[in-house]
Amino acid sequence: FTSKLPEVGTTIFTKMSALAGAFDAINLAQGFPEFDCAPGLQALVSKYMKLGKNQYAPMAGVSALREAITQKINTYNHCSYDPDLEITITSGATEALYVAISAVVRPGDEVIVFEPAYDSYVPAIRMSGGVPVYVTLDPRFQKIDWEQVSTRISTRTRAIIVNTPNNPSGYVWTREDLLQLDTLASRHDLIVISDEVYEHIIFDGRKHLSVSSVKSLAERSFICGSFGKTFHITGWKLGYCLATAAFMVEFRKIHQFMVFSVITPFQFAIAEFLNEPEHYLELSAFYQRKRDLFNDALKATGFDIRPTEGSFFQNAGYAGLSEENDLALAERLTREIGVASIPVSSFYAAPVSYKVLRFCFAKNDDTLLKAAERLGKIS
Amino acid sequence: FTSKLPEVGTTIFTKMSALAGAFDAINLAQGFPEFDCAPGLQALVSKYMKLGKNQYAPMAGVSALREAITQKINTYNHCSYDPDLEITITSGATEALYVAISAVVRPGDEVIVFEPAYDSYVPAIRMSGGVPVYVTLDPRFQKIDWEQVSTRISTRTRAIIVNTPNNPSGYVWTREDLLQLDTLASRHDLIVISDEVYEHIIFDGRKHLSVSSVKSLAERSFICGSFGKTFHITGWKLGYCLATAAFMVEFRKIHQFMVFSVITPFQFAIAEFLNEPEHYLELSAFYQRKRDLFNDALKATGFDIRPTEGSFFQNAGYAGLSEENDLALAERLTREIGVASIPVSSFYAAPVSYKVLRFCFAKNDDTLLKAAERLGKIS
Ligand SMILES: CSCCC(=O)C(=O)O
Ligand SMILES: CSCCC(=O)C(=O)O
Repeated sequence: FTSKLPEVGTTIFTKMSALAGAFDAINLAQGFPEFDCAPGLQALVSKYMKLGKNQYAPMAGVSALREAITQKINTYNHCSYDPDLEITITSGATEALYVAISAVVRPGDEVIVFEPAYDSYVPAIRMSGGVPVYVTLDPRFQKIDWEQVSTRISTRTRAIIVNTPNNPSGYVWTREDLLQLDTLASRHDLIVISDEVYEHIIFDGRKHLSVSSVKSLAERSFICGSFGKTFHITGWKLGYCLATAAFMVEFRKIHQFMVFSVITPFQFAIAEFLNEPEHYLELSAFYQRKRDLFNDALKATGFDIRPTEGSFFQNAGYAGLSEENDLALAERLTREIGVASIPVSSFYAAPVSYKVLRFCFAKNDDTLLKAAERLGKIS
Repeated sequence: FTSKLPEVGTTIFTKMSALAGAFDAINLAQGFPEFDCAPGLQALVSKYMKLGKNQYAPMAGVSALREAITQKINTYNHCSYDPDLEITITSGATEALYVAISAVVRPGDEVIVFEPAYDSYVPAIRMSGGVPVYVTLDPRFQKIDWEQVSTRISTRTRAIIVNTPNNPSGYVWTREDLLQLDTLASRHDLIVISDEVYEHIIFDGRKHLSVSSVKSLAERSFICGSFGKTFHITGWKLGYCLATAAFMVEFRKIHQFMVFSVITPFQFAIAEFLNEPEHYLELSAFYQRKRDLFNDALKATGFDIRPTEGSFFQNAGYAGLSEENDLALAERLTREIGVASIPVSSFYAAPVSYKVLRFCFAKNDDTLLKAAERLGKIS
């Protein structure tokens, strides 16, 4: 039968992980940690299973978790989300983003998408009959071209998708970016959908500035977050969406029929684990050390590195090393050198010719050093 | 902003559970077991967490689980699903149904829905711009009116939704039903989406006849299943969808952007637990005893009972007991007698006046006896 997503194939993350497996390569492609989550967190899951927390959670999420998250976010982002009416626990940020987009986008609506873009935004927009309109930036952009954003907005623009810290560029939005967004969003009455899953992985003294930290923006935004990256549990699929009550009513209508509710024992476990802020406050230092270790080791290789500002991804330019396009090189390095990466062209809708690969450094030190050594042998 | 689902409110399940909580009533409304899952199953989850199975599962699901399910289904339903290409693990059957409907239904397409209908089907159809066309049956129907089905099919009919055993009627599809469906589906080239989450709860010697058991039907069908009801883990949100490879390609395109993947340690745990068939083969006897216990206890009450054929729901007529409509009575019984149920009118799109309540008997014997005693005091 006819496809609703004719342009979609298998995601690059699945493809490169499969290729890495086939060639027994070091997998710095798909973004997931090589190390495990805290044993204490696993013990909490076991505890709540034993306590019989194995049946349906409330559709919006377990209240202890809704309270723990809103309290945390309200404190750090200086906002005031209501735990009963303004948050829903989701099956990862992926579900949160899909539901928010589904709630907002109607057939023919335009949605502004910054490229490079994570791969789930556009198919979600298309499934609702929306039209993505791209603001195209360099894969290693270090500022946002707000002039370009302005020119992309039309009377049919319904929403704009934000991602800070950005995957794959690592770019961290500044106060100035938020103010520019606020101006445009209120002038054109846009809804903002913000993907902030790397909020706790941010370097060199920068601070995460959530879209929710600007009151007039918070009122027109869906903020999507997750615990996968923060607690090394990408496979637990636990995320959330925050939005003003009127938005959240519509969000929940869809969530309740898309998955209904989310894994109960994990919700209780995370709620308790969130009581100790060091579990997330120490994460940036942890990953900054890994970033620096990897980048230092890459110095000898000829890859062109500007240290990433946030996320656990490091982009590396190879213009001086190879004429190949990024997909061809990523595949060849996997096969021949045994290091898998993501070609940044996969974060763009149209063909692009950037000579840049994305490496995930959420790996053990050994792995990072070994990968860098192998990358030195590129020929 | 404008709602995409203006007709949707909070689900009756959430509402009645809240009312039951507020009045400390026995909750025979929302369908979930009062007893816990097997300690051995919990131990398996703890084991796989400890083994470090905490990062992203493959998008289609962990291969051990895909193999365990297809092997089980292929054996019992005499079919031949391929574990690599023809199954995807989902966040419960709810997600499986939503994705299947999203993959198939285009704006303006008609979809045949049997009423009484579980509440997630129609919003999923509407979110894709489809139009539900109802085949309306009694809440306690004991056969399907195939003449009526015929008259509902038009040139715009795209799909038909099947649910066997049926929630809330308990009706179990017969071989004759499958043959009627097969004839109509092939004549009109319909896609079948089948919700079979109660496949292992089926009484009085009946057999579950899956849509997948008829080869020509399997080729045009999405079969949605779940472990929530089978292993007393409604809160773990683990389900799956089976379909022919060409269908599954489209299903996965949507699943990969809607939730991407499902909780890894649970997938490994269930895969291992499925190795021992007694975990599901003993379930029908377990629930038949509960059904009979509850129904015997209800004999004195004046409720009109025909023993349910499958599922863990028992419908009860109250025409001789009260003039109230079913919603009013369900609410009053919760408040005054302390027993919550589901008014069957909530399974219909248009107002109906059936005098029938749905009770969930997935409860401890004590609870069922106490509920029946209280129901004897209806006035
Ligand atoms: C859901 S698989 C992709 C993981 C990820 O966030 C990334 O690699 O960018
Ligand atoms: C997802 S809440 C509803 C549970 C259920 O299947 C029912 O009560 O019918």
